[in-house]
Amino acid sequence: MKRQARKIYKERGFAASVGFGKKPALLIIDFINGFTDSNCPLGSNFDFEVDSTAKLLSIFRKKSLPVHFTTTVYDEKLISAGVFSKKIPSLSYLREGSKWVLIDDRLKPEEGEVVWVKHYASAFFGTSLSSALRTQNVDTLVITGCTTSGCVRASAVDSCQHGFHTIVVRDCVGDRLRSAHEANLFDLDAKYADVLAIQDVIKYLENHFPSSES
Amino acid sequence: MKRQARKIYKERGFAASVGFGKKPALLIIDFINGFTDSNCPLGSNFDFEVDSTAKLLSIFRKKSLPVHFTTTVYDEKLISAGVFSKKIPSLSYLREGSKWVLIDDRLKPEEGEVVWVKHYASAFFGTSLSSALRTQNVDTLVITGCTTSGCVRASAVDSCQHGFHTIVVRDCVGDRLRSAHEANLFDLDAKYADVLAIQDVIKYLENHFPSSES
Amino acid sequence: MKRQARKIYKERGFAASVGFGKKPALLIIDFINGFTDSNCPLGSNFDFEVDSTAKLLSIFRKKSLPVHFTTTVYDEKLISAGVFSKKIPSLSYLREGSKWVLIDDRLKPEEGEVVWVKHYASAFFGTSLSSALRTQNVDTLVITGCTTSGCVRASAVDSCQHGFHTIVVRDCVGDRLRSAHEANLFDLDAKYADVLAIQDVIKYLENHFPSSES
Amino acid sequence: MKRQARKIYKERGFAASVGFGKKPALLIIDFINGFTDSNCPLGSNFDFEVDSTAKLLSIFRKKSLPVHFTTTVYDEKLISAGVFSKKIPSLSYLREGSKWVLIDDRLKPEEGEVVWVKHYASAFFGTSLSSALRTQNVDTLVITGCTTSGCVRASAVDSCQHGFHTIVVRDCVGDRLRSAHEANLFDLDAKYADVLAIQDVIKYLENHFPSSES
Repeated sequence: MKRQARKIYKERGFAASVGFGKKPALLIIDFINGFTDSNCPLGSNFDFEVDSTAKLLSIFRKKSLPVHFTTTVYDEKLISAGVFSKKIPSLSYLREGSKWVLIDDRLKPEEGEVVWVKHYASAFFGTSLSSALRTQNVDTLVITGCTTSGCVRASAVDSCQHGFHTIVVRDCVGDRLRSAHEANLFDLDAKYADVLAIQDVIKYLENHFPSSES
Repeated sequence: MKRQARKIYKERGFAASVGFGKKPALLIIDFINGFTDSNCPLGSNFDFEVDSTAKLLSIFRKKSLPVHFTTTVYDEKLISAGVFSKKIPSLSYLREGSKWVLIDDRLKPEEGEVVWVKHYASAFFGTSLSSALRTQNVDTLVITGCTTSGCVRASAVDSCQHGFHTIVVRDCVGDRLRSAHEANLFDLDAKYADVLAIQDVIKYLENHFPSSES
Repeated sequence: MKRQARKIYKERGFAASVGFGKKPALLIIDFINGFTDSNCPLGSNFDFEVDSTAKLLSIFRKKSLPVHFTTTVYDEKLISAGVFSKKIPSLSYLREGSKWVLIDDRLKPEEGEVVWVKHYASAFFGTSLSSALRTQNVDTLVITGCTTSGCVRASAVDSCQHGFHTIVVRDCVGDRLRSAHEANLFDLDAKYADVLAIQDVIKYLENHFPSSES
Repeated sequence: MKRQARKIYKERGFAASVGFGKKPALLIIDFINGFTDSNCPLGSNFDFEVDSTAKLLSIFRKKSLPVHFTTTVYDEKLISAGVFSKKIPSLSYLREGSKWVLIDDRLKPEEGEVVWVKHYASAFFGTSLSSALRTQNVDTLVITGCTTSGCVRASAVDSCQHGFHTIVVRDCVGDRLRSAHEANLFDLDAKYADVLAIQDVIKYLENHFPSSES
């Protein structure tokens, strides 16, 4: 069925390749304890996706390419959550001061890597991520994180809207539901981003960017 | 499978009802010839969804509630299309001056109904729709249009992000692919919007808003 | 000269009154130690303006009307400062963890009052302040803080752009330079906001909103 | 007095030079008939500034550097004008279909030069100008147009906020009031942009970009 659907899109002029631009940055979306630890109602087991992201992260660092993280954090009274927490009451776990809003230890941010605090799904909404990327001369965003049907989807759509070549790394994004994961990667690849395997991204980086360390 | 998925979401504190606020507006997304006429490569048969939307539109008008339309239009050289037209080359059909960018005649906008020109998927991105709604004291957006997996999804996510109670009318939104239609309504209902049948929206409007005509 | 200039504006259809809407919120911009303590190179003596703001703040609290604060905070490497810190190198004082980025003690935020972290001049840029105000049904923003020619001006322009009735309280906004203070209040009153004396704002609030405490 | 003020800013770490980046675009703000023709209540005599801009425009064209225009246009009922037209009732002259909203003939846009329709002061607000510039790899915005205290100021602040090196060309921006013109150039130079004479901008362009024609 997916094959048939893909065929329809191709015939009608969708799902072309965007490709990489000249300078990629890595965007790691919401790999925070609240989402990667199953003890939180919002959480799931994303060990594979976190480990894959860690691999990619170390390559971006070796090549001195920019890295950005996001987390989702709300004030005590959830005023910054707007109507979003009406729809998803569990967002109330993500309060300032809680361990749930901290980046997963396996991906510890280093100096020079900004952790953007957001309140909604998209990494671009209510943040100045786009301005920072503009200043860093970034034209391509390589996206990992969770969840595919939530913040990853919303951020990838916004990344395209903000004018960035957008790459979603299939092995590095996870979802609570396999069906939603696949459906969203399908949509993203048809309309907004190139969905690539991690090996292809690594190969591209190795071929185009020398490592900065001797 | 969907039932099982819905159960997981409910257990974890997703998919609550947002409900209506105090003043709804109707947002009709991209029901333009290019999308509603199958002679355009971007088009599909959305007769049912357009007719359903026409029904809803006449009720919003009778009750003097705000109505907004969107269209997607690009300059000759597609500079305003950014990387989006790299991913979807067919967007080039939506040039200024073309019949494809005009609102479908069955839904002709009237004076006082703004047609917002957008360049990307979300009705909020690169428009000041949100400011106009703020000035009209609108707190609830009732969304119809196409496509469910494209501009409707992106606009509904942004509507939630901008702080609006968001209602997506199942009978009034359409997609090229049935599977993508269903998958996106599922995501939207779980995280960003209430997905309602048209009768439920009509019933709500009839109960809460007197008709403005004698 | 100002009188002559004002006359020209009036004749040409500028500088009308926007007035209050139905529900005002107080926005206190960047009254942080870095700006209110003259020991910081960015700082000035704003004792009068801070005290006036404290007076207004206590009235908003008594009437249970929403209150919002902003602060400006950068990461260690100033990536979130973009080109802004090239133009204003002193912004480097406003690093995370520094005492300079904390709200002045005379205006201590209480629970239910959000402190928005911004990176640029406007309180709306790169924050979701507008969404929160939308959810709180706020349609009018009463602005205080510093500096008149910097963050206050930029925020007041954006407040108008986002669709809010905008009131700038003359006694509650301050600047390093008297000339810049006056020039910016003049522009704001001509094009974007009503510039009012604190007594007029207090009178309005007392007349329209009962105090919530007995 | 200005000299004294400038000294204070310099001592405190303001008013450094941002400089040019690698790829500039020209942004011509609201040089539309409604503003450049004194027969419109919104208009003034900007012949000198329009002619200076025409000179700069021809250089950007010869060097095949991107050019963008803005205009301000409202719907019949001024819904897209929000509270802005409450403050400035004369904005009602800028209706769709009117000659006032057309770009001044002396600066006729050519193919490949986008005319962005905006509804508020900033060229970035409610447009996707920033995304287009991102796709064109532009990192520097050279700003001309009118008025210095209105749309130019708001756009230059937003340009800085969006991460662009921002150059305001003193000879190419105009205002109804000389005092407002000077006060705003002073603020912009202190905090957001480099204010340069047209000869300096031309010299820079000639030195860094070969003409594309033979």
